[in-house]
Amino acid sequence: MANFGGHAIPGTFFMLYGFWLTVKHILQYNWRTRQPKGRHIMPPFFKKMEYVEGGFQIFASFVGIMVEQFVVDGPHARLYNREASSWVKLMNWQHSTMYLFFGISGVALIASTLIKKVPTGVDRLTISMALFVEGFLFYHHVHGRDPLDAHIHSLLLVAVFGGSASTMLEVFIRNNIILELTRAGLFILQGTWFYQIGFVLYPLNGDLWDLKLHDNMMFVTMCFCWHLAMALLLVASTSSAVWLTVMRFSEKRREIEIGMRDTSSMSGSQKALLEQSDEE
Amino acid sequence: MANFGGHAIPGTFFMLYGFWLTVKHILQYNWRTRQPKGRHIMPPFFKKMEYVEGGFQIFASFVGIMVEQFVVDGPHARLYNREASSWVKLMNWQHSTMYLFFGISGVALIASTLIKKVPTGVDRLTISMALFVEGFLFYHHVHGRDPLDAHIHSLLLVAVFGGSASTMLEVFIRNNIILELTRAGLFILQGTWFYQIGFVLYPLNGDLWDLKLHDNMMFVTMCFCWHLAMALLLVASTSSAVWLTVMRFSEKRREIEIGMRDTSSMSGSQKALLEQSDEE
Amino acid sequence: MANFGGHAIPGTFFMLYGFWLTVKHILQYNWRTRQPKGRHIMPPFFKKMEYVEGGFQIFASFVGIMVEQFVVDGPHARLYNREASSWVKLMNWQHSTMYLFFGISGVALIASTLIKKVPTGVDRLTISMALFVEGFLFYHHVHGRDPLDAHIHSLLLVAVFGGSASTMLEVFIRNNIILELTRAGLFILQGTWFYQIGFVLYPLNGDLWDLKLHDNMMFVTMCFCWHLAMALLLVASTSSAVWLTVMRFSEKRREIEIGMRDTSSMSGSQKALLEQSDEE
Amino acid sequence: MANFGGHAIPGTFFMLYGFWLTVKHILQYNWRTRQPKGRHIMPPFFKKMEYVEGGFQIFASFVGIMVEQFVVDGPHARLYNREASSWVKLMNWQHSTMYLFFGISGVALIASTLIKKVPTGVDRLTISMALFVEGFLFYHHVHGRDPLDAHIHSLLLVAVFGGSASTMLEVFIRNNIILELTRAGLFILQGTWFYQIGFVLYPLNGDLWDLKLHDNMMFVTMCFCWHLAMALLLVASTSSAVWLTVMRFSEKRREIEIGMRDTSSMSGSQKALLEQSDEE
Repeated sequence: MANFGGHAIPGTFFMLYGFWLTVKHILQYNWRTRQPKGRHIMPPFFKKMEYVEGGFQIFASFVGIMVEQFVVDGPHARLYNREASSWVKLMNWQHSTMYLFFGISGVALIASTLIKKVPTGVDRLTISMALFVEGFLFYHHVHGRDPLDAHIHSLLLVAVFGGSASTMLEVFIRNNIILELTRAGLFILQGTWFYQIGFVLYPLNGDLWDLKLHDNMMFVTMCFCWHLAMALLLVASTSSAVWLTVMRFSEKRREIEIGMRDTSSMSGSQKALLEQSDEE
Repeated sequence: MANFGGHAIPGTFFMLYGFWLTVKHILQYNWRTRQPKGRHIMPPFFKKMEYVEGGFQIFASFVGIMVEQFVVDGPHARLYNREASSWVKLMNWQHSTMYLFFGISGVALIASTLIKKVPTGVDRLTISMALFVEGFLFYHHVHGRDPLDAHIHSLLLVAVFGGSASTMLEVFIRNNIILELTRAGLFILQGTWFYQIGFVLYPLNGDLWDLKLHDNMMFVTMCFCWHLAMALLLVASTSSAVWLTVMRFSEKRREIEIGMRDTSSMSGSQKALLEQSDEE
Repeated sequence: MANFGGHAIPGTFFMLYGFWLTVKHILQYNWRTRQPKGRHIMPPFFKKMEYVEGGFQIFASFVGIMVEQFVVDGPHARLYNREASSWVKLMNWQHSTMYLFFGISGVALIASTLIKKVPTGVDRLTISMALFVEGFLFYHHVHGRDPLDAHIHSLLLVAVFGGSASTMLEVFIRNNIILELTRAGLFILQGTWFYQIGFVLYPLNGDLWDLKLHDNMMFVTMCFCWHLAMALLLVASTSSAVWLTVMRFSEKRREIEIGMRDTSSMSGSQKALLEQSDEE
Repeated sequence: MANFGGHAIPGTFFMLYGFWLTVKHILQYNWRTRQPKGRHIMPPFFKKMEYVEGGFQIFASFVGIMVEQFVVDGPHARLYNREASSWVKLMNWQHSTMYLFFGISGVALIASTLIKKVPTGVDRLTISMALFVEGFLFYHHVHGRDPLDAHIHSLLLVAVFGGSASTMLEVFIRNNIILELTRAGLFILQGTWFYQIGFVLYPLNGDLWDLKLHDNMMFVTMCFCWHLAMALLLVASTSSAVWLTVMRFSEKRREIEIGMRDTSSMSGSQKALLEQSDEE
């Protein structure tokens, strides 16, 4: 997929996934902070979100693998060409391998939501592994390219391995909103950086960059930091927007409840329950 | 042991060890989740498993060292040849050193199971050390080889050092099923990868690989990820199989117990105990 | 800012910031150890300190960016020169980027102090990120320089990345005085080392150092350790001085209170409060 | 100190220090496991051990610095020779710097034992720093030497940085006997390895090693693993010996106490105390 589109498609997916994660984790965090201590059974709505996420991961990975394999110039599930004594389209096979691991993480997410006995953290472990494999393949993918090409891909690895490490931490430190948003932010960063790679290596206006100029590498390094700042900003503003929206909704509901409470008669235990949920 | 067999034998051992660890830790996990909080005295059956494991480690290490030393073209416990002013069969000595540390970990496992005062975690520390030493010697073993040979061995190090790090974590985080299965999975991965090394460097059909071709290295890197996926699958399916088997057995026993309870008369304290063990 | 002043200014800022952090955290530590267990609501005075710190960070970053951009030979907010087909003053842009992240950490500090719902640890995360970005840009900044120039800057990275890592730990381990003082100490170290870089690369007496002599590099490495020892000493002595001052003040207040207590009449609850604060 | 003695002296010190740490921490561990939960005020005997250790560290560092500076061919506290425009005996200055940090750790140990308000963990932080500085200077010390010379010193770094990392962990994880004995073992390893460096680089029988032969490097790598196994064995056997000795002594005391108890009359509270201490 050595063209602009081939970088824009995964970029779009990673960005959307990052936003989805931000929204999901802020909703969960909001819900957690409202619960009395000790109660941590997820409501069905969150379970549904996990199923949707896992299902989408599996679906997207499957489509991704199929496209990589059966695209016109793809390997068509053929790995080794005996006549030519050479491997067939290793790049497509590598991409398929990356998709495979994201698919596995989807399976793990669904399994750990569905089956109580699957140890918590398996979903994060598999995401961490998927990112590790992505980074691992990219890392061995980069040797022998032009300096700027190699450098811009190795910057991607900062986001990928950073995400892998922070997600691995989540296996042990559960329900830490900072780690969860870090993961979301690093997915967004990965997404925007894929776009940046596309813009630099396959410029839309056809104005090719000098792949050996040192100044270009310096700019690209700095540009990565700007993307990081932007990812931070996007996560912060999305989080705030979601939080405020939830607050407004729950306040409205509270007002309705208060109105209802005044007119209806209820037992003491019901009142206590309501008041408990009203305490922020 | 520069032949296919020399890679298949350790590969087989590591794979079997990985499966054993999976079974052992799933049984322990199953047992832990059934216990009321606070009670964590291991039943004698688990102690016996540890003795068997430790004993086998010591035995296998001893045999391994003896074979490496007294094989026909081995060093026969001779380290330095004064006449030739050269070291004698350093490779065999290195392998003996690796076995030695697995033997030490067996001793530590038995000691920490047998003697209450040996601090918990010593067994994991020594396994971590054994893996570290294995990786450490392999790492300094690889310099100056053909690119593919060096690369395929350095991929092994990912499994070895990964296992060493995750086992080291277990010194501090006890009874974490994810870490325990990670260890098991990385042993399986190491085992299957030993086979892969054998297949690549000493192909059974005699069709030698080009040790300098870049495409071969790219394929091997990707192949390592496939092994990782397979190790994950093997651990997951073994775990599920063990879990379901245990469930079926314990349900049968429960039914028998319920039958017995109806017909027999028992004191209140006995009933309480039974009910406690029935609570999932 | 390739001159002595260009290194002395950030050096001064970092040193002062390190001292401020030492004083702030010793005051907080002193306050924490005096509190009965469980009470951890920060008094308004500490909140004010955080606002001052955050406000100053934002202000200094803004000024820094403006100076870097609009200094006589600066880029004047122009990134790419289309006529010359070259980037404009990338060095100034890099410094602006570094300042930007310290500004962001100021915003995060104020937000997390002001708004209860911002998760604790966000301020540390952003400081860690600011240090990471600083080190990241410096690291890619250093290639192709004279050995001593490269070496003296890479020694700076030890302080910068060390600070980034220890601050990252603070996201998870809160209120650990050792981590807090380590951060303070590493900022002081960074500050004094900036001065050292200035002295070596732009000697005030005009006596230029040989940038290729190996002995100079050996000296500089050792000199970094001396700076480390000095930073340790400065943190330790500042901490002791602040602690003793606080002790003296609180003893005086206690004497006054005891005097007042003897003469005045008060309710039982007031007495209990006073006695609570007198304990330790 | 480029001779055998120059390596044997620090080697002896590190080995003895490692044994001292083993004995000290086993005594503390033995004492901790006998205490009822919650009580963790160190008895005066342990405090005295800390003072002795800290005092010895300060004394030995002072002597070490003096010797390095004022030995016949030492720098005599002169850093820069203006006439020759060169640094004076940088090697001796580097060694002095290393000693300085071990001296600082001695001061920190005494301070944190003496003054209650010094945060726990400062002693470990400074030991970790001392090891870091030692490794840091050695690391930059090694460039440009013969391969075997460089390699044998870089193996030392495994023990030094390993010790630094494990000691740093002790800042956060207190009273973990495994970490404490790891530190002790790595000091012993460092000590025996110093001897090994002496034997290899300055052989007593005058039979010089070929510093460029690859086989020598392979042997030395393996030999390091043997030293590791030996350090493990030494820590384990010393620990067992100390533990058994303590057990025997406390049993004798118990018998005497039981004898006393039979003949003497005592109040109920005294009995309760005795029984509490008898419970293992």
